[in-house]
Amino acid sequence: MNKRIATVQVVENIHAINDAQAEKLRARLDAAGVHGINLMSAPGSGKTTLIEATLRGLAGELAVAVIDGDIATTIDADRAAAAGAVAAVQINTGGNCHLEANMLAPALDRLDLAAIDLLIVENVGNLICPANFAIGTHHNVVIASAPEGWDKPYKYPGIFTGADVVLVTKWDAADFFEFDLERFSTGVRALNRDVMILPLSAKTGEGMDAWLGWLTKNDKEQVTKAI
Amino acid sequence: MNKRIATVQVVENIHAINDAQAEKLRARLDAAGVHGINLMSAPGSGKTTLIEATLRGLAGELAVAVIDGDIATTIDADRAAAAGAVAAVQINTGGNCHLEANMLAPALDRLDLAAIDLLIVENVGNLICPANFAIGTHHNVVIASAPEGWDKPYKYPGIFTGADVVLVTKWDAADFFEFDLERFSTGVRALNRDVMILPLSAKTGEGMDAWLGWLTKNDKEQVTKAI
Repeated sequence: MNKRIATVQVVENIHAINDAQAEKLRARLDAAGVHGINLMSAPGSGKTTLIEATLRGLAGELAVAVIDGDIATTIDADRAAAAGAVAAVQINTGGNCHLEANMLAPALDRLDLAAIDLLIVENVGNLICPANFAIGTHHNVVIASAPEGWDKPYKYPGIFTGADVVLVTKWDAADFFEFDLERFSTGVRALNRDVMILPLSAKTGEGMDAWLGWLTKNDKEQVTKAI
Repeated sequence: MNKRIATVQVVENIHAINDAQAEKLRARLDAAGVHGINLMSAPGSGKTTLIEATLRGLAGELAVAVIDGDIATTIDADRAAAAGAVAAVQINTGGNCHLEANMLAPALDRLDLAAIDLLIVENVGNLICPANFAIGTHHNVVIASAPEGWDKPYKYPGIFTGADVVLVTKWDAADFFEFDLERFSTGVRALNRDVMILPLSAKTGEGMDAWLGWLTKNDKEQVTKAI
């Protein structure tokens, strides 16, 4: 038996353990009636700014908690708390490029799940590794920002394949960057035929109603094929 | 001995093997008089667009080859070839979130190193994992684009710590996104005191002369502390 095969076995073992842990976390959320969202994107695509706008938009409607994953700092959790999250927990992964279910467990322990309707988990900024690790949430929301360009689904297929919703953020900058929504959407739909693709701008508010509507109704059909 | 410790040993072993391989690759480049650059950034920060502008700017001065690392597609190598690279090789990593030295070796075999002055390796779009794997090049160039925001060095310290040059791309969009260069630079310099930080725009050409000058002269002191 050579070393390559041994290494692959370790990875598969890690994934099996992670999936089992994720199932347990989802059962905890279900028991408490909490809707869990796993928000994934490249660094700097606007996840935290979107969370801030989402918190303001849902104020008085849903009690939202935020768990932020980052290599370092508590910048994101601080911003979420300031924007109105009922609770914000920062997970610093050290050098780890994604969240795993076992990192979420102690963060959930810090939350009063009975007092929460919606849990937004902001994953580490990375379009690759987070796609491979379930963390116990119900829906995967993948963000690509307009400045990143239309080619992201072609170059990072894994994360778009597993998405339940795809948001194109910084939509107010789409013209500036000549973002080609048709080529982007063709790429996404080749991987994931019926996924919702929703351009929006947290800055101007465009598209925010559809996004908040999806979160509030928790009914994917409401806004499927928004474009 | 528990499993966690065993796993760490495997990782250290991988890094030692990678570093040894990287040293061999650097010796090959040195023997051929090739200057090797490892270009790292988040997805969509403008690496490929910068490479295109660099190739046009260095036409007639330096013979440039490009090695592109991506999860999938040959979009980037195709663009480099069209923009004037004397050779372009695409490495598809499958799902791997970074290049490793052993992936570069077969790509170097495809190049006529004697005919090349400058080798630009475009790493996989990721601000985390590429920082941990030497690939045999001489300099690490880290890109953060203005739309990504000023907080990147605080949230992704590892990659900025190891940078020889930091480029802030899409500088023509800095005002649109209210990019705070002072907070960004403070964060970078806390990790890496004397690194060159250079704002530029491949679109308008601003800052390109300093970047091309650094590449042409291969003398880091020339443009240190460009801001």
